[in-house]
Amino acid sequence: MNEPKNTALNESFDPHASSLHGEVQNEVLQELYAIRGSIDNFDAQLVYLLAERFKATQRVGHLKAKHKLPPSDPNREKAQIERLRALAHEAHLDPEFAEKFLNFVISEVIRHHQNISDSHNDA
Amino acid sequence: MNEPKNTALNESFDPHASSLHGEVQNEVLQELYAIRGSIDNFDAQLVYLLAERFKATQRVGHLKAKHKLPPSDPNREKAQIERLRALAHEAHLDPEFAEKFLNFVISEVIRHHQNISDSHNDA
Repeated sequence: MNEPKNTALNESFDPHASSLHGEVQNEVLQELYAIRGSIDNFDAQLVYLLAERFKATQRVGHLKAKHKLPPSDPNREKAQIERLRALAHEAHLDPEFAEKFLNFVISEVIRHHQNISDSHNDA
Repeated sequence: MNEPKNTALNESFDPHASSLHGEVQNEVLQELYAIRGSIDNFDAQLVYLLAERFKATQRVGHLKAKHKLPPSDPNREKAQIERLRALAHEAHLDPEFAEKFLNFVISEVIRHHQNISDSHNDA
């Protein structure tokens, strides 16, 4: 029993979890697992990258709260959305999806900024 | 005029776009721009990473359509969500947000899979 103790993460995740067992040939399932392994790696990268992005927006939130600036900045958001659509076009990602994605993230960020601002005002 | 021709991307994006001009001291604005520069870099990474993730899920979509498998896989999605929540916890990202994010991406993926399946059936 000298193996390193598993984290909750490694213990519980089954990379072969599927509702397709028994419904499909083994070769097809193996090909599916191979692609899903890549998707799982991309998802881990996305989580860590989003975490880092929120660390940066938390810094913006504290700066804004300290100087009593509004949580949202419409001109900035407009410029970000146009840039992300252009980047998406270059990356062959659907620009509509990229815009929806950024709006989804920004709405979370504004919620954070509002919370930070409220806690500054309460202090 | 020997400078390389700008792409549409570089031409139009103003990293200092803001509704805060004139409302805030220059030092604060400079600090804000510095953090926003990092956010813009994270966003470019997110777009390219999402593009690569969709390339992988498109491969899954074609595999599923070829073998007449359903667009969604509930057991897989459940395992993915639990893993992402655990990863988010490790990365100090709100697990609720990570789950909402994955559901947002998965709903787009299922839409793609449905489109691929429809075009296979039409062929």
